[in-house]
Amino acid sequence: MARPTVRSAHRSLVALAGGGKARPVGRVTLVGAGPGDPDLLTIKALKALQVADVIVHDGLVPAEILDLARSSARRIDVAKRKSRHTLPQDDINQLLVALALDGLEVVRLKGGDPFLFGRGGEELAACRTAGVDCTVVPGVTAALAASAGAGAPLTHRGSAQAVTFVTGHAAAKAGDWAEPDLDWASLARANQTVVVYMGVSTAAPISLRLIEAGRDAATPALIVENASRRDERRILTTLAGLPAAAQGLTGPALLMVGEAMAMANVQVPDLGLEVPRVQSMSPGQ
Amino acid sequence: MARPTVRSAHRSLVALAGGGKARPVGRVTLVGAGPGDPDLLTIKALKALQVADVIVHDGLVPAEILDLARSSARRIDVAKRKSRHTLPQDDINQLLVALALDGLEVVRLKGGDPFLFGRGGEELAACRTAGVDCTVVPGVTAALAASAGAGAPLTHRGSAQAVTFVTGHAAAKAGDWAEPDLDWASLARANQTVVVYMGVSTAAPISLRLIEAGRDAATPALIVENASRRDERRILTTLAGLPAAAQGLTGPALLMVGEAMAMANVQVPDLGLEVPRVQSMSPGQ
Repeated sequence: MARPTVRSAHRSLVALAGGGKARPVGRVTLVGAGPGDPDLLTIKALKALQVADVIVHDGLVPAEILDLARSSARRIDVAKRKSRHTLPQDDINQLLVALALDGLEVVRLKGGDPFLFGRGGEELAACRTAGVDCTVVPGVTAALAASAGAGAPLTHRGSAQAVTFVTGHAAAKAGDWAEPDLDWASLARANQTVVVYMGVSTAAPISLRLIEAGRDAATPALIVENASRRDERRILTTLAGLPAAAQGLTGPALLMVGEAMAMANVQVPDLGLEVPRVQSMSPGQ
Repeated sequence: MARPTVRSAHRSLVALAGGGKARPVGRVTLVGAGPGDPDLLTIKALKALQVADVIVHDGLVPAEILDLARSSARRIDVAKRKSRHTLPQDDINQLLVALALDGLEVVRLKGGDPFLFGRGGEELAACRTAGVDCTVVPGVTAALAASAGAGAPLTHRGSAQAVTFVTGHAAAKAGDWAEPDLDWASLARANQTVVVYMGVSTAAPISLRLIEAGRDAATPALIVENASRRDERRILTTLAGLPAAAQGLTGPALLMVGEAMAMANVQVPDLGLEVPRVQSMSPGQ
């Protein structure tokens, strides 16, 4: 593996067994890149990018953010979304460890936040097992950006006293991805916001199960695709209208269900597809 | 109200009724300041601070962050924590509107994220009602910083498939702040992380109710006080041990309950108080 000539500071030294020579040991920083808008990077994430020897990233991190790293930094894409050539998680874990043991300053750059549906915990655990120093830089998770952009708060006095984040794929059984295993009764309670990450493909069962479990079919539901990016799209609908509204979406998207979503500012562009029951509620409602 | 001499760009002009003269109209930006570490500001938040004429902030925003604003910017503290002279929310709403109508570029700077227990929705609604332009810059909410700092993921394969954010004070009835009104049965389910904002004073009933509702008393529980700040403290305990561990904490703190909290890295400093049952679990466990 090629070693870069530029070395960063803050590198600890360990003595090699049986010799007097010191060898630099690298480290891993799991960095949340935020939702996509480069301005939603934290200053700490930017600093981490600018000392990295190698950036291990996935397909959700836009080129504009990768370009903030040093030009000498090597880039490794472990999840090419379009070609579906995604490295298995165990392989990513071992790659991070190997790069750090090779003496490199490794940044593992992840969309959103590393510890909220980012599988950062698995990477951290692998580093700990291997004795590799690993720290974490939090990021603005997509739900916060989607909520801010839409002007629809996740919590709101009188209409959302709690918020729950789940994933549409969370505990789906192998071969049965159409039906996520969620706690429908809890999620169906009014006065809370439910945010479903990666829920577009399972919008139909999510809508059905929540209504069956007692959540009002007319509960406002907001879909935000590509939150904070130039091609962000927002669709305000109802819980019952979610499946139809989610049809045809291809980018990363959030489903956000809850009374406070009625505050969302939506300028629905021409979607080029049939979206029944899309309602654009007036601001401040 | 004194007007600053420095005006920022991006200000729309409206014609005054009955006159040909144009008057600048200000605007409000609700900005998440993140958890406290100035490096956890987003670049967008920093940019907003640097064009503001006036910063309306609360006591959770540290001076180091306020100092990133222009020296000419006026600062208004609406929540002096120590003296408990906190402006009521309705007064804050009206202050923001009045400043913007006076032609100012107003930044409402809030700890964490404006839309996650930040009451930003109420401020946005007041602006909309008054016809004042209001946008929102998301921030790194405290739970993400606490989780990153501790190395304890909010979601984790096999032990936390969902995360719920509640507040210890959420729907407490007037005069009965000791018992928050939460959905204990939902929160008691295993395999999820529950984050309680502002929960220190209600740690005892929270612990009791969750155990009564069936959550294992031995579930790992992490308290993080002053997340991301120099004086951050982490205490790793169990659900049963929460009340004792929370005693004596005075800074803003989060209670984080869930199996994945066992991964937390804790160097418990000398707390100067009795904290029984504090366990420092080994990393990677």
